[in-house]
Amino acid sequence: MTTLYHPSSGHDGDLRELHAALQQRLDVLLPAGDANDRVSAAMREGVLAPGKRIRPLLLILAARDLGCDRNHPGLLDMACAVEMIHASSLILDDIPCMDNAAMRRGRPTIHRQFGEDVAILAAVALLSHAFGVVAAAEGLAPEARAQAVAELSTAVGTQGLVLGQYKDLREGSSARSPEAIATTNELKTSVLFSATLQLAALAAGAATPVRDKMRCIARDLGQAFQLLDDLADGHAGTGKDINKDAGKSTLVAMLGADAVRQRLDTHLCSAEAHFSRACGKNQATRRFMRAWFTQQLAAFS
Amino acid sequence: MTTLYHPSSGHDGDLRELHAALQQRLDVLLPAGDANDRVSAAMREGVLAPGKRIRPLLLILAARDLGCDRNHPGLLDMACAVEMIHASSLILDDIPCMDNAAMRRGRPTIHRQFGEDVAILAAVALLSHAFGVVAAAEGLAPEARAQAVAELSTAVGTQGLVLGQYKDLREGSSARSPEAIATTNELKTSVLFSATLQLAALAAGAATPVRDKMRCIARDLGQAFQLLDDLADGHAGTGKDINKDAGKSTLVAMLGADAVRQRLDTHLCSAEAHFSRACGKNQATRRFMRAWFTQQLAAFS
Repeated sequence: MTTLYHPSSGHDGDLRELHAALQQRLDVLLPAGDANDRVSAAMREGVLAPGKRIRPLLLILAARDLGCDRNHPGLLDMACAVEMIHASSLILDDIPCMDNAAMRRGRPTIHRQFGEDVAILAAVALLSHAFGVVAAAEGLAPEARAQAVAELSTAVGTQGLVLGQYKDLREGSSARSPEAIATTNELKTSVLFSATLQLAALAAGAATPVRDKMRCIARDLGQAFQLLDDLADGHAGTGKDINKDAGKSTLVAMLGADAVRQRLDTHLCSAEAHFSRACGKNQATRRFMRAWFTQQLAAFS
Repeated sequence: MTTLYHPSSGHDGDLRELHAALQQRLDVLLPAGDANDRVSAAMREGVLAPGKRIRPLLLILAARDLGCDRNHPGLLDMACAVEMIHASSLILDDIPCMDNAAMRRGRPTIHRQFGEDVAILAAVALLSHAFGVVAAAEGLAPEARAQAVAELSTAVGTQGLVLGQYKDLREGSSARSPEAIATTNELKTSVLFSATLQLAALAAGAATPVRDKMRCIARDLGQAFQLLDDLADGHAGTGKDINKDAGKSTLVAMLGADAVRQRLDTHLCSAEAHFSRACGKNQATRRFMRAWFTQQLAAFS
């Protein structure tokens, strides 16, 4: 999705540190494997290739904005688990019987580098590993760890990423209403954002009303991200295949780029308003999201 | 693997009841989906098609033998989760870029019924759902639920099913030592048996020494099952493709059927001895395993 993220161009040194800490922890959490272990190598390539790390950054920033200790020992692991699930879903989305994509993050897709069988096994192993990492996250009450697993399970399954990918494969090329597109977008993106923010709330020990607000924020952010993805399609420099959406019924094709930008801004403002109500004066998450969208949108104007 | 299990031919009415209860609970736990939801339909077909249910039966019987209440509200769900993971692994093993199998459990494989994309999404959704079911299992302390998730995660990942399948794909057709074959067999089978028995021990609140014994039992049972699978290959009536192992270096090809039968019996006796030490007078699990292997072996003599 969209241009690669360059934390060094952001205004926040803290963000650069976080980005580096994530990369380092992912490196530790992923199996090292030996020279013959192509599955571990594919897992590492799928996760460690330069990425934006939006979801794990969002998790950590939101948890802190909700009052979580900066030194919470399990926070980084939960963030890494979400990134592993995201990477797993990208590997599978790209394989020949799905989107049959050649490029991702500026590199050949995992199945092109490692073969389809290894790519699928790596995706399954990443998914499974993510659940294990969350189940063992330090500094989190057992009940919160179990709840975090349940949140991620819902985000992946037939109410989430899996259904979103299925709808996109089967319904993407036929005429769809804007509402139908929004539903697929929600499944493809919002559900994992929702789990991400629920994990943040769990790490912070947030109360139920706050967790409910996090679900609203996730819905808005997911829509905004998918709209950005639609706007990005057709532009070079995204690191992905260009014009993958040609022939698909997207909102850009239906409403035009200007209307999509406006819609995106509405969702972003709505997410910010919810964040304000949930986090009060703490606004690291809002600042991060706004700066990120502004940077991305500037690339397509 | 091997002939379909007919609980009605067993001597144990309790077993028939358990088999029916499992089928019913799996039916409830799996998403109903609507007429257009092919992923849910594929998940249901992959799990609900007549199967032996060895792992879930083993989980329930072992938990009871270890002192777990017969009415434990989460036991059936944990058993169903293990069966979902098993079904997920079978769906993936069968797809064209893996074993490219045409038949399973006497029916066309899932990708032949639903297409490869839907088969892979169904496998991912089953896996993910299984983690969610265990994380939410009733009547189990949160810490035990989190531990159960961690056990299943290890069983699936690069230390378990995924590595076993990879080794089988990449090394199966070259010459291997009996030790190398045993290692692959352990990864392909023993690790999920191990998680199965660990979940049984967690449900029963068993102490660490008992959990250690369960790991030894799983190793023996896994080896015995793979040896049975090797013996079964080439026989009709297994519900699977015949002679799938032709060209693979199996222990039957290497040592002959008689030696394999003997090896199988040694593993089974070892598992029984461990069970005796762990469960004392309670011997439902031992009786079940012995009867099952006897029935299966009779089919190939």
